[in-house]
Amino acid sequence: MANVAVIGASGYTGAELVRLLSGHPAMKLACLAADRNAGKEYRYVYPGLRHLKLPTLRTYDEIDWTEIDLAFCALPHGTSHQVIGKIPDDVKVVDLSADFRLKELAAYEHWYGTGHSAPHLLVDAVYGLTEFYRGQIRDARLVACTGCNAATGLYALLPLLETNSIDCDHIVIDLKTGVSGAGRTPRETSLHAEVSEGFQPYNVARHRHLAEFDEQLSAVAGRSVEVTFVPHLLPQNRGILATVYVQGNARRIYESLNERYQEETFVHLLPIGHVPSTRHVRGSNFVHLGVVADRREDQVMVFSTLDNLTKGSSGQAVQNANLMLGFQESEALLTPPLFP
Amino acid sequence: MANVAVIGASGYTGAELVRLLSGHPAMKLACLAADRNAGKEYRYVYPGLRHLKLPTLRTYDEIDWTEIDLAFCALPHGTSHQVIGKIPDDVKVVDLSADFRLKELAAYEHWYGTGHSAPHLLVDAVYGLTEFYRGQIRDARLVACTGCNAATGLYALLPLLETNSIDCDHIVIDLKTGVSGAGRTPRETSLHAEVSEGFQPYNVARHRHLAEFDEQLSAVAGRSVEVTFVPHLLPQNRGILATVYVQGNARRIYESLNERYQEETFVHLLPIGHVPSTRHVRGSNFVHLGVVADRREDQVMVFSTLDNLTKGSSGQAVQNANLMLGFQESEALLTPPLFP
Amino acid sequence: MANVAVIGASGYTGAELVRLLSGHPAMKLACLAADRNAGKEYRYVYPGLRHLKLPTLRTYDEIDWTEIDLAFCALPHGTSHQVIGKIPDDVKVVDLSADFRLKELAAYEHWYGTGHSAPHLLVDAVYGLTEFYRGQIRDARLVACTGCNAATGLYALLPLLETNSIDCDHIVIDLKTGVSGAGRTPRETSLHAEVSEGFQPYNVARHRHLAEFDEQLSAVAGRSVEVTFVPHLLPQNRGILATVYVQGNARRIYESLNERYQEETFVHLLPIGHVPSTRHVRGSNFVHLGVVADRREDQVMVFSTLDNLTKGSSGQAVQNANLMLGFQESEALLTPPLFP
Amino acid sequence: MANVAVIGASGYTGAELVRLLSGHPAMKLACLAADRNAGKEYRYVYPGLRHLKLPTLRTYDEIDWTEIDLAFCALPHGTSHQVIGKIPDDVKVVDLSADFRLKELAAYEHWYGTGHSAPHLLVDAVYGLTEFYRGQIRDARLVACTGCNAATGLYALLPLLETNSIDCDHIVIDLKTGVSGAGRTPRETSLHAEVSEGFQPYNVARHRHLAEFDEQLSAVAGRSVEVTFVPHLLPQNRGILATVYVQGNARRIYESLNERYQEETFVHLLPIGHVPSTRHVRGSNFVHLGVVADRREDQVMVFSTLDNLTKGSSGQAVQNANLMLGFQESEALLTPPLFP
Repeated sequence: MANVAVIGASGYTGAELVRLLSGHPAMKLACLAADRNAGKEYRYVYPGLRHLKLPTLRTYDEIDWTEIDLAFCALPHGTSHQVIGKIPDDVKVVDLSADFRLKELAAYEHWYGTGHSAPHLLVDAVYGLTEFYRGQIRDARLVACTGCNAATGLYALLPLLETNSIDCDHIVIDLKTGVSGAGRTPRETSLHAEVSEGFQPYNVARHRHLAEFDEQLSAVAGRSVEVTFVPHLLPQNRGILATVYVQGNARRIYESLNERYQEETFVHLLPIGHVPSTRHVRGSNFVHLGVVADRREDQVMVFSTLDNLTKGSSGQAVQNANLMLGFQESEALLTPPLFP
Repeated sequence: MANVAVIGASGYTGAELVRLLSGHPAMKLACLAADRNAGKEYRYVYPGLRHLKLPTLRTYDEIDWTEIDLAFCALPHGTSHQVIGKIPDDVKVVDLSADFRLKELAAYEHWYGTGHSAPHLLVDAVYGLTEFYRGQIRDARLVACTGCNAATGLYALLPLLETNSIDCDHIVIDLKTGVSGAGRTPRETSLHAEVSEGFQPYNVARHRHLAEFDEQLSAVAGRSVEVTFVPHLLPQNRGILATVYVQGNARRIYESLNERYQEETFVHLLPIGHVPSTRHVRGSNFVHLGVVADRREDQVMVFSTLDNLTKGSSGQAVQNANLMLGFQESEALLTPPLFP
Repeated sequence: MANVAVIGASGYTGAELVRLLSGHPAMKLACLAADRNAGKEYRYVYPGLRHLKLPTLRTYDEIDWTEIDLAFCALPHGTSHQVIGKIPDDVKVVDLSADFRLKELAAYEHWYGTGHSAPHLLVDAVYGLTEFYRGQIRDARLVACTGCNAATGLYALLPLLETNSIDCDHIVIDLKTGVSGAGRTPRETSLHAEVSEGFQPYNVARHRHLAEFDEQLSAVAGRSVEVTFVPHLLPQNRGILATVYVQGNARRIYESLNERYQEETFVHLLPIGHVPSTRHVRGSNFVHLGVVADRREDQVMVFSTLDNLTKGSSGQAVQNANLMLGFQESEALLTPPLFP
Repeated sequence: MANVAVIGASGYTGAELVRLLSGHPAMKLACLAADRNAGKEYRYVYPGLRHLKLPTLRTYDEIDWTEIDLAFCALPHGTSHQVIGKIPDDVKVVDLSADFRLKELAAYEHWYGTGHSAPHLLVDAVYGLTEFYRGQIRDARLVACTGCNAATGLYALLPLLETNSIDCDHIVIDLKTGVSGAGRTPRETSLHAEVSEGFQPYNVARHRHLAEFDEQLSAVAGRSVEVTFVPHLLPQNRGILATVYVQGNARRIYESLNERYQEETFVHLLPIGHVPSTRHVRGSNFVHLGVVADRREDQVMVFSTLDNLTKGSSGQAVQNANLMLGFQESEALLTPPLFP
């Protein structure tokens, strides 16, 4: 049995952690922290979780680290590195922010436009894409969970670069994401009246998750890989679907993915020609992949979908924590998606 | 041809005024004011209106009143009375806020929890429920448009009190409203993730529109009438539907409504037993009413629906302005609803 | 370990049963039947459940009853009694249709406009509102799960009638329900374009669940009770919220509910004055209740919300099956709701 | 004044025609036909249009052609050519189906899998993309409105091929469309519960609008052009947005579009770097285009959005009819979009 803390428990990823961990037989939610809501009972922040027996929210400073084995940090980037820099070394950390995802300090400063207060931790931080960094994650003290958009694209692309199955110079990721990724902070662009019944691109060709694509894809390809990446905002809360346009042989691409993922619990490749849907992974830790050959020769579409709050953030975080604490990797994560 | 100004042009009711007035042959949008967005072209605030030739947004202080015949004031309550207090007397005013709706200053102070800087204007302000105050509105200098929830209930109830067709002591208004009524200001409770795929009551038994119900219904009934009023928030942008539970004879109730509204352009009574839907009035200035007899004797349901931004606010405002300026009452307001 | 069958597995309540049962440690999904989809793998009917190892769909006739301990029957009313009439006596049955809910055959024929092929089973069938018929359910061979709307209203009302806390002659149930209750069969009225961004009443004063209200409420009150019941269709998939208008003392009403449910796992009464939301029970087996006093004396609003597919149907069915098979009542049903 | 008929008036494009034409000063809705709903008053098919004085629905056979100047045919493909083949020669026809869009009979038979009963009309039928075939449309007897997806892509691409500004061999159209394009016929895939809160591709690399892309793009390019086309279904009713990936110089691409459309009333090019949104054209006849340069050299994204029911179908049809009847092209089409 391990005692865990959730820092930043009043955001959506924080609540998703609490939801998932409530079903975990070996992790105990010993501490919930959220500076602005400190002192509140969690049931007044997330009334849907009122049936759970949970500790009252406290400030970060009030955390008693001696009782914590592992901390999930679900804070915004910029805040995260400041908080994590102060956590005692013997507490394992799973960070859900962007602060420890990039190996290159300069890349972080460039893409996030801010300095970093704990750059010494960057070196040992492990990128949290579980299926690709499982070994390192098991031994890590600090795991940096991926960007949810980055994860969606990487599940489609990494095996294709590993097997050299596609042309690295012509990769287009057309991605569509639900609005919960923008968080619970009130913003005009997240209002119901501004999101429902409408669709648009955003941060075209300059989304910060490009930094993760660049670093991860280039590392695997052994050369610089630059993708074209266009995110769009969907009128729905959960779910990301990436349509990845690549050049290569459809059958070979299919086989590369099939081989890579056939033993994986959470990554499912559909039969060739079939397409996935965000609604079939909603609320679950599963990834669904599909491959369709275009009528144009050597043009192939790879589809990848996951729930941004689960496999794209908090589910991934629990999966990594399971490894770090020596539990079964899929513990508390096999709940089916909710449909409709 | 009249020159009109829209003050508070960057909110949803402001934009709805601009949308409706763009089709008006006799009102010219001479001025758009919005303090926070002053200096911006309107197309960057509402890109859907980019095809219109519109004046650049300015501050309230920059308005040249000598060129304005009538001002629509689409500001929040509390701000509205301050701005309107300073408008020259020869400019007619249609206010969309709550600041001049109530005759009783004390009631205003009680329900809105704030003082009033222009109480002298309360006396002459006319309540903007056009079909009931048409004569006074024609001659008014200041018309106070109704609350959108209040209007929805009053269209169902006023004719029944006028004709003494129901028991005044047992009126229940169960009302459901879309989220655009909460405005464009970012609030956690208006986020897509907090509104879509969910439904709940709010401000139960203490919604401010109760003040309008009390004043209007009591005035018509000639005695104090207190309704039970429970508003709920719908996961949709536009539309209000009130289910009004009354005690009386269904046929008589139907006839009272039929007689009252048969000559009205914008208020449509459906055949008895039929029910209205918010989707059939979306974006239009129409009200749909329905009457259904319960199986229990003398229990009757009256349904009333309108679009909160149109007939509930900005369409009603244009309708009133048409009267005040001597134009045809329905000018620019006959556009059908948008469905689906 | 018990072997269970789901008959009618390709509808939404069928899929919800599969979703819930996939996490049940003591029930094995031994058989999935669906006449029209017989022969298909379940993953092609519900791709979100592709990670589960499930039997291929078969016809009702192909079911091998010798291997089944309990059957969930998730068929439409009218079909259900025909199928259940043929199930061997030693197989326990949990029916999700309306066919065995009413004690009175005449009431069934009246409200459902059809004959009944197994009227002899009506006598022993137990109404599946677990918290009120727990004892009988434990010993039942056939349990008839409630209508989802009926359940929502009954959780609010039954304790008030049991304790004689309200006036039985003035009960109004204004109910709002999501569209998944209408099932997966294509209908114009269930289309996205006809449901989203709109709201309306339906089956006013003649909804079939009135039959359940009449029978259940009258039985508890010991006299004939007729409620006014107006259902409305929400632009959302899951969730029912009933606003129940009653006359009585708010504090006494609150205490009646509190006493009745304080030991119940799935029924939660919020603090007095607080209101529930469908989004806080989505996908879960919980019921949330709220009580608010109106400003008018002795007028009280009781709010009740649940997920129509879970606590209103399939979750309730599993809860009852747990009792019938001697398992812990809450087994497989404690998963938190999904939000956002 | 011209008398017009709408054939197929009970579908969504039929209702959209009625909505638009209700504001037309020179076209009179003389006839509404819909076989299945013949005999009904239109207000019971579309209650939102109840304020209009409209003829009762009749069958196709009951149409008195002597009183009709122009017929809008809003029937499904396959039915359309049969009905139009029987319309007298002196009645002008605007067809909204796919039956007369393709010049090549073989292409029609291939993509639509059915024969054609009026192939002789294919030769003279004019493709209804108004801004590109204006001259021919003016003189046409039969205009075949475009596919809504095709129109969205063609507005982005045609000027680029005309000016030879992009590489014709690397065009990717990633398109997202609302569900109203699937029509009012009940289908499982159009249900609210199957569409809302979810997103997925469909008909990947084999959507029928490919035939239009092939024919139109090749004609302009003077060589065979084959695009990659992946449509996706959005959880919203109205709106299409195409993200078109092309290779060329962003500035030159922008100038090509700017030059082509600067005099056009309905096609608006946003400032370079800005992106359009379906919500800014909802319910209107406008097209919004945007151009963004990728960080990768010579990779450019062109965004195109329109309302599938308006500019993509019925608005386009009215625009063409205006030309065919000698009215002002924009008559009845300048209504602003509805937002929110």
